[in-house]
Amino acid sequence: MYSPEPDELAYTFGGRAPVRRLRPGDALEVYTEDCFGGRVTGVDTLPTRVVEFPFLNPVSGPFHVEGAAPGDTLALHFVSLQPARDWAVSSTFPHFGALTSTSHTATLQPPLEERVWIYDLAGGVARFSARNSDFVVDLPLDPMHGTVGVAPAAFEARMTITPDAHGGNMDTPELRAGVTAYFGVNVDGALFALGDGHARQGHGEVSGVAVECAMRTTLIVELLKGVPTPWPRLESDGHLMSTGSARPLEDAYRISQHDLVTWVAGLTGLDELDALQLVSQAGEAPVGNVCDTNYTMVAKVAKRYLRGARAYDGVHARLRERAATMGA
Amino acid sequence: MYSPEPDELAYTFGGRAPVRRLRPGDALEVYTEDCFGGRVTGVDTLPTRVVEFPFLNPVSGPFHVEGAAPGDTLALHFVSLQPARDWAVSSTFPHFGALTSTSHTATLQPPLEERVWIYDLAGGVARFSARNSDFVVDLPLDPMHGTVGVAPAAFEARMTITPDAHGGNMDTPELRAGVTAYFGVNVDGALFALGDGHARQGHGEVSGVAVECAMRTTLIVELLKGVPTPWPRLESDGHLMSTGSARPLEDAYRISQHDLVTWVAGLTGLDELDALQLVSQAGEAPVGNVCDTNYTMVAKVAKRYLRGARAYDGVHARLRERAATMGA
Amino acid sequence: MYSPEPDELAYTFGGRAPVRRLRPGDALEVYTEDCFGGRVTGVDTLPTRVVEFPFLNPVSGPFHVEGAAPGDTLALHFVSLQPARDWAVSSTFPHFGALTSTSHTATLQPPLEERVWIYDLAGGVARFSARNSDFVVDLPLDPMHGTVGVAPAAFEARMTITPDAHGGNMDTPELRAGVTAYFGVNVDGALFALGDGHARQGHGEVSGVAVECAMRTTLIVELLKGVPTPWPRLESDGHLMSTGSARPLEDAYRISQHDLVTWVAGLTGLDELDALQLVSQAGEAPVGNVCDTNYTMVAKVAKRYLRGARAYDGVHARLRERAATMGA
Amino acid sequence: MYSPEPDELAYTFGGRAPVRRLRPGDALEVYTEDCFGGRVTGVDTLPTRVVEFPFLNPVSGPFHVEGAAPGDTLALHFVSLQPARDWAVSSTFPHFGALTSTSHTATLQPPLEERVWIYDLAGGVARFSARNSDFVVDLPLDPMHGTVGVAPAAFEARMTITPDAHGGNMDTPELRAGVTAYFGVNVDGALFALGDGHARQGHGEVSGVAVECAMRTTLIVELLKGVPTPWPRLESDGHLMSTGSARPLEDAYRISQHDLVTWVAGLTGLDELDALQLVSQAGEAPVGNVCDTNYTMVAKVAKRYLRGARAYDGVHARLRERAATMGA
Repeated sequence: MYSPEPDELAYTFGGRAPVRRLRPGDALEVYTEDCFGGRVTGVDTLPTRVVEFPFLNPVSGPFHVEGAAPGDTLALHFVSLQPARDWAVSSTFPHFGALTSTSHTATLQPPLEERVWIYDLAGGVARFSARNSDFVVDLPLDPMHGTVGVAPAAFEARMTITPDAHGGNMDTPELRAGVTAYFGVNVDGALFALGDGHARQGHGEVSGVAVECAMRTTLIVELLKGVPTPWPRLESDGHLMSTGSARPLEDAYRISQHDLVTWVAGLTGLDELDALQLVSQAGEAPVGNVCDTNYTMVAKVAKRYLRGARAYDGVHARLRERAATMGA
Repeated sequence: MYSPEPDELAYTFGGRAPVRRLRPGDALEVYTEDCFGGRVTGVDTLPTRVVEFPFLNPVSGPFHVEGAAPGDTLALHFVSLQPARDWAVSSTFPHFGALTSTSHTATLQPPLEERVWIYDLAGGVARFSARNSDFVVDLPLDPMHGTVGVAPAAFEARMTITPDAHGGNMDTPELRAGVTAYFGVNVDGALFALGDGHARQGHGEVSGVAVECAMRTTLIVELLKGVPTPWPRLESDGHLMSTGSARPLEDAYRISQHDLVTWVAGLTGLDELDALQLVSQAGEAPVGNVCDTNYTMVAKVAKRYLRGARAYDGVHARLRERAATMGA
Repeated sequence: MYSPEPDELAYTFGGRAPVRRLRPGDALEVYTEDCFGGRVTGVDTLPTRVVEFPFLNPVSGPFHVEGAAPGDTLALHFVSLQPARDWAVSSTFPHFGALTSTSHTATLQPPLEERVWIYDLAGGVARFSARNSDFVVDLPLDPMHGTVGVAPAAFEARMTITPDAHGGNMDTPELRAGVTAYFGVNVDGALFALGDGHARQGHGEVSGVAVECAMRTTLIVELLKGVPTPWPRLESDGHLMSTGSARPLEDAYRISQHDLVTWVAGLTGLDELDALQLVSQAGEAPVGNVCDTNYTMVAKVAKRYLRGARAYDGVHARLRERAATMGA
Repeated sequence: MYSPEPDELAYTFGGRAPVRRLRPGDALEVYTEDCFGGRVTGVDTLPTRVVEFPFLNPVSGPFHVEGAAPGDTLALHFVSLQPARDWAVSSTFPHFGALTSTSHTATLQPPLEERVWIYDLAGGVARFSARNSDFVVDLPLDPMHGTVGVAPAAFEARMTITPDAHGGNMDTPELRAGVTAYFGVNVDGALFALGDGHARQGHGEVSGVAVECAMRTTLIVELLKGVPTPWPRLESDGHLMSTGSARPLEDAYRISQHDLVTWVAGLTGLDELDALQLVSQAGEAPVGNVCDTNYTMVAKVAKRYLRGARAYDGVHARLRERAATMGA
């Protein structure tokens, strides 16, 4: 298992040398720290006291994939995600989140109170304990990575808290075990990285912070040569998904739906308007995040409505079969 | 069953005399026309040829509820929704929808082609037939009303295609049979109306038009005196939901999540930050529409995470029981 | 001079009977109350104590114009605007304005402090006196009407605080004496109204409230039969202006620029792309409001760049000449 | 004069080694290429044929400033801007601009026609010649730099077409000769760069492309140690200006106004609400761009309303005096 040394933690996509080199077909076990670098360990440890900008949301990586070149697609199949500790953490954070003013939706109001919650993880649940009353409730675990991506195009390096066409901090619960994620490759080696494990997360991550935890993750790396992918896509056994990350939120929706419509058209032989019509009636739109520097929407359609259409030459099914043999 | 005469069809919420008077506790059977007034009957009948602005999206009503006064809440429990014909219709419409420029997201580009699709409704499915290829697929029926609301506040009258704090054209698939909808009353008698039946709809109604059909609907009217409701809310057996309708889409999200957080706080005794934390991890955010004059988001939380909290003094459960006795 | 009785004040465009009937060519002298109905008379009178929703932003009117019918354009030439008192008032208002969260950009933060400022109007200036220090500065008077419009289309009635295609609360300083405003007529008689005088206003009305004052205004009414106007337009001696009111703010910009580009194309014979190019390099974009229920942008181009193009058959020049003879 | 070799042209802020080292107080003469790298030389040379992403909008630099460190402010005083050729160029560009759908405001519509305009620059004017008619008009020269900035914070590298807190492609006509621009320093040496000269530009750059020209520019570099600047600011002889770059456009407005209000409060001793009130009535809000990856707004207030307040210890006045001695 690759577990980053403290000085290996990365805070950008792009602009970093690889920490490991992988080949297409390789499986990778990787440890990722939580979004606070593991420093918020109790309800009295306020994030702003122990975490300093820009050392937020560290990722493990980047990993160089042999042979990956601009114009290819990197496929990452998530075999398993396992919280690495028996607790997780959440908080409010000053001027961050959907129900507060922020640095960009700037107002003259003071921030909300900074408050920390610690969740116990055990028996398949995350236990929420209110801070100001005795309310306790168990929420099902649904582990996911908030942040996965590749080095951006155009010589850019982007903070790990920003989602965009290269992936990054999309914060969608759809990125869970059993899913294959596709990214367009922008630089030689693709240089993917991941982090920001969540034991679970609501839609939109309204407070700005999920149930944050260190994660042990197993994934398989695959490479699709000469196949472009304009925005990150996901595939589960039942669904195809496109993502869009932008502001305002309707543009994230437009990007994701536009990509799904044209993808479906290409897979089914429907013309664009017929594909638009089908997606319009059969499609779903799970919200990713409405709190980060770009907002993320997912456009999703069940494969059973696509009459046997097979994405990326069926790589998801092959990776799924292989994962089943790994006993993860 | 109330079935409107052609000259009774309403195109606004507010500014209309009631067509019927009801008492709290009354059941209502009502016929609603489709969004095109039933005039688009085949693939060669383009909507812009047969429907003239502002005679779009007719609703049945308004219905006056005895005793309803500003500051009260009107509860409408949807017992059943039954498509009234064995076909439904969809289309593109010039400069309307999420993947086209519009009158407000104005560009110099010509509109997309105007095209009509007819769906056969039978055996619990809506059959999609592509126009430019032989692709056919069955989608499950999931009947809903796109448009339900009361007369607005502030002496306003609003087009039925606009969703806002009074309800209106929210276009959320969550508004289906088995659900109770709550609206704050703004004028004496509440003056509710409904229409825009959809045999089913994808999230966001990306093309701008759902699987549109005339509908036969049974609902029960209830009144909660002295109980305010700031934005329309929905309750199903399993979930509480708040809505927000605004632009940009993140404001619709903010309104709906803000309402859900403060509602949950009131029901559970959690303080606002604890309620924010719970909703942030347990909440869902189904997209309503991303095509109308305001966009609609729904904020949703499972009741099982609220430890027995009971909304509106349990009226949903009582209405559900009564509906069960109606054999609908 | 028409001066409304208290019970004549209107709080909507649409849904009201006319208070007077005018003929094309008539001059009108009219008194308008300030946005608080004149009730905030000192720094200790907080608006929320004396003004109750929806009795905000009263307008004088509506005025019925003989012969005006849907498809026509109403021209209102503003001869003079004179503050009616020797003081004006401004304030913060809870959850209203650009630098605070609002009912729609909803957050869990408490509102900013509610505070009132009284301005002395004399000698052509409005005197600003800080409340928490001894800072005093004189700002030039530049009287304008924040709110002017006609009855909306589609049987709507809209709160006077909302700007849209019918005009309303556009809050642009460009609407000052010497300017002709053009509105598309939606209902017989046009039913125009006006109010919300500002002694002056910054761009965007960032605090949500301008230097508010009662106003004595003289205008001339003209009617252009069979000439449509899609969004309110303004004409001064030097400039043509289009407005757009929407959210997000870029849509207000798009609407206004789209209207100006197509208007310029029609006036000059330029094709749309050439007109886009000219407006793109020669155009201005004064911000109206970024605080109301819709935001307003103005698109503006100097007539001198249009090689003699004459809008609306030169009605502005004729009204300007007539105004000069009125000694106002 | 520094004139970059072709292989020295930079396409990012950040992630580049400096091309020159300067000391505070140094004057710099610099040549900048136009946004197309000088490759669009006639109306038949379509930009998409000769310019390849991401080799768009090259800047000259970065320049390393001795002693500049994070937490300091870099002041760049623009002594003169002189178009370097007797012609300039503009165009439409597929899916770029405010009146077209884009990669982010994604629709299924085809792009607008790609068209090029060549402007003759002579006698203080830029001559616009329509492509599809014989319309010709002269527009005054008003040379400016669309793109000026420093290396971003948080280890980022950003495309030169993106404006953000580090500056970049703000595309505001306020950045002209006689103005001092202030940038917060994020990395040692500040690493500033500039480009994208415009012979003139309308507000918002609605078509997406200004009157683009190569430029010869003289500027003076100054450093303010230990003085932070959160967003780029500008100062002219008469005005203080703050900028904000974000989406949606209202957030760019909020950022710029928030910065101006707090800046004015700090300079005048007004408390924040009094400063908000003053800016709200006296402030201007010139639109920068409404076409780039972030939109830019400027918040502006006349110094004469600030009773002698002096920004940055009067450095603008000193630089202005020195510029006067340079005979530029």
